Amino acid sequence: MTKLDDLCAFLSIPSVSAEPQHAKDVEYCADFLVEKLSSLGFSATKHLTEIHPIVVARSPRVEGKPTVLIYGHYDVMPVDPIDEWESPPFTPTIRGGRIYARGASDDKGEIMAHILGAQELIEEDGALPLNVIYLLEGEEERGSYSLHDYLKKPGVLEELACDIIVVSDTGMAAPEVPSFSYGLKGLCCFELEVSGPAMDLHSGIFGGAVANPITTLCEMIATTHDAQRRITIEGFYDGVCEIADWEKDSWRRVPGMSNAELAQLTGVPELQTEQGYSGAECVYARPTFELNGISGGYEGEGSKTVIPTKALAKMSCRLVPGQDPVDIMNKVEAHFRKVCPAGVRMKFTKQHAGDAYMSDPHSPLGKAAQRALELTFGNPPVLVREGGSIPIVAELSKRLGKDALFLGLDLPDARIHSPNENMRLDIFEKGITMAKTLLRLMSDVAP
Amino acid sequence: MTKLDDLCAFLSIPSVSAEPQHAKDVEYCADFLVEKLSSLGFSATKHLTEIHPIVVARSPRVEGKPTVLIYGHYDVMPVDPIDEWESPPFTPTIRGGRIYARGASDDKGEIMAHILGAQELIEEDGALPLNVIYLLEGEEERGSYSLHDYLKKPGVLEELACDIIVVSDTGMAAPEVPSFSYGLKGLCCFELEVSGPAMDLHSGIFGGAVANPITTLCEMIATTHDAQRRITIEGFYDGVCEIADWEKDSWRRVPGMSNAELAQLTGVPELQTEQGYSGAECVYARPTFELNGISGGYEGEGSKTVIPTKALAKMSCRLVPGQDPVDIMNKVEAHFRKVCPAGVRMKFTKQHAGDAYMSDPHSPLGKAAQRALELTFGNPPVLVREGGSIPIVAELSKRLGKDALFLGLDLPDARIHSPNENMRLDIFEKGITMAKTLLRLMSDVAP
Repeated sequence: MTKLDDLCAFLSIPSVSAEPQHAKDVEYCADFLVEKLSSLGFSATKHLTEIHPIVVARSPRVEGKPTVLIYGHYDVMPVDPIDEWESPPFTPTIRGGRIYARGASDDKGEIMAHILGAQELIEEDGALPLNVIYLLEGEEERGSYSLHDYLKKPGVLEELACDIIVVSDTGMAAPEVPSFSYGLKGLCCFELEVSGPAMDLHSGIFGGAVANPITTLCEMIATTHDAQRRITIEGFYDGVCEIADWEKDSWRRVPGMSNAELAQLTGVPELQTEQGYSGAECVYARPTFELNGISGGYEGEGSKTVIPTKALAKMSCRLVPGQDPVDIMNKVEAHFRKVCPAGVRMKFTKQHAGDAYMSDPHSPLGKAAQRALELTFGNPPVLVREGGSIPIVAELSKRLGKDALFLGLDLPDARIHSPNENMRLDIFEKGITMAKTLLRLMSDVAP
Repeated sequence: MTKLDDLCAFLSIPSVSAEPQHAKDVEYCADFLVEKLSSLGFSATKHLTEIHPIVVARSPRVEGKPTVLIYGHYDVMPVDPIDEWESPPFTPTIRGGRIYARGASDDKGEIMAHILGAQELIEEDGALPLNVIYLLEGEEERGSYSLHDYLKKPGVLEELACDIIVVSDTGMAAPEVPSFSYGLKGLCCFELEVSGPAMDLHSGIFGGAVANPITTLCEMIATTHDAQRRITIEGFYDGVCEIADWEKDSWRRVPGMSNAELAQLTGVPELQTEQGYSGAECVYARPTFELNGISGGYEGEGSKTVIPTKALAKMSCRLVPGQDPVDIMNKVEAHFRKVCPAGVRMKFTKQHAGDAYMSDPHSPLGKAAQRALELTFGNPPVLVREGGSIPIVAELSKRLGKDALFLGLDLPDARIHSPNENMRLDIFEKGITMAKTLLRLMSDVAP
């Protein structure tokens, strides 16, 4: 199997963790990883859970050398809207120097780059120069419940004992500018349903006499931001630190992250940021309150003059260090209960939550990682705080008592979570080199 | 065929005018009416149009007697949500003294009551004592475009020349309290789409830097009402007359229309009305701005942390005499363009519109209609302004230069436009008596 064959085989498995009809595909994907890692001499196990399997693979023990735990997720996001994909999401297709598939940059391209980096190292040097544990789960896109549970089982923290945690599931500024992330945002997801009438009402017979659940939902949502785009939930910003000057200087120089470039990349007419902060500063270090979905009433062709029974909004907040996601959800709920008018009922449903995370980029192992990026890409990495969230990593770091480092390979146009997700093949190749170099450099650091 | 057989046959035809897959059913329904009316001695014609047929049926000419034009629509609303129907919407089912089917009270029960009233009159007296024209269209639920066009064709106004227009497609306060409506609300329907990003965005990678189309749509919608539930579109209330004292007195006494009764009927925790107006006053005589549907982003199970490309709201206004629906739509669009922020794009789509209508309930033919209701139900009718709209009737009245009278048979729990639409069988029977009595009484009024 060539390296590209390995990647294509991995990408072609529809391991969509959120969709029950793909449960067997997700398990098959775990089997694929166990087989691949076993072929490289790893002792690899598929741990079954109540939902999707966790794969743990250990390299043969090398005494006196550090242990690097590489975390990744082999599950992928759902594909909708399917009609916007140019090639089928699970038929890996190469176009213009990129490979297109769901999971190409989140997170399969990265996982396979790490595995093939280890493979090249083994081929070149005969063996790995340090201890490597791969921890690969199948539920990151749906809250990592099983891994959260797994970490509490007796013996597991010992099984996963390491000196550093490495993750490649974050962003990268530009193809020639590697990114080293020292922070992740936290996350909480929740839903607000507003209901009123017992059945759909004719808007002539009852209009004007009852609160319209859709209108009311909109009005409640409209109370969450002020005109300066500051979130007006009481206590929302408690504990949020201001951005350090060195961070502002550093982020001002990240390629592709200027306001003009972000506007062009996203296609919006112009950016809209919290007043006083650039687009990059908001993405990296300001908490957000987003609407992910809204529905209610008649959604088909033409018009239907009803006052519907209910309306639903799916929302999520990206949080920064200092904010507790459970506390935030409580504050959001309290806010909605305060502004909810008497003519409707509301139901607030908390979904998953994960802490924000921040680590020290300048530790010895951190510096080794930065050096590996510099050697691979020919440029020192930019140090950024990731706008995305990987809640399980914060948990992993806390339980194992070790820092996590994020070496991102998702370019801005990778379209993760969107149709036509892709990874550039040159970045995939560099990822392999980066992984190999990382392990070599880290093996020189005392455990 | 018994009277109930006739009604069941009529109700079982899925004449859903908004859905192309039912086009043949709609035409078959027109054929059914032509056949029924022909069997009663009417000269009945199915006029094909570009969309759905118009049925015109004329009784044999009686000189020196008035001509009553009875308007109705044989098309029905779509049935969704289908899973909330207890029996199939096109399998007329009798339960607890009611017949359940889509169209039972809007408008097929009423049309058949009028036709069977004429039939009974013919059976009892040998012939009709005046001139009757049935004008039955198949597009009322989708804007009556073909009938609007038909009225402009040469010779049609002569074909439809009459002394009065009678419509039974409006509300009825309570089973023993007939309603005589002397006004209809106008209507305009429109859509607002807000868009921003060129593709769905990962809410971590881009969140905080771009305007979220769903949030923005909600904020724009929230600018349409103030805390007193007054519509804050500039110029919206221009030309709107205040409610007369005699109307307030009259409406205070309409059974079932008190605030408490409306709340109980609709199932809302409490009413929400424009400040200073009761529920009944809002329904009958205040303009409204309603959200009929909203959609955007992820609407499936669980969560998906995207910033979507766009969000869409379907809206409509019920208008009162003095308001011009096209002018109102222009004002609404101007308002949204004013409040639309720079970080998104908006698209405003005007859909159908129809004028409000008011007539004189105390004309000789009007008084005959009121008397027919009193004789049939044993109580004088309440005089109300209908909250609903039948735009084609305003047009018909204007073009023919004759008043339209509305003798409603939709009870508040008829669930028109909703699942489990029904008509009480005793009301259906009374409707037949009302129709028969109406024709008899009107034949005594000089044309």
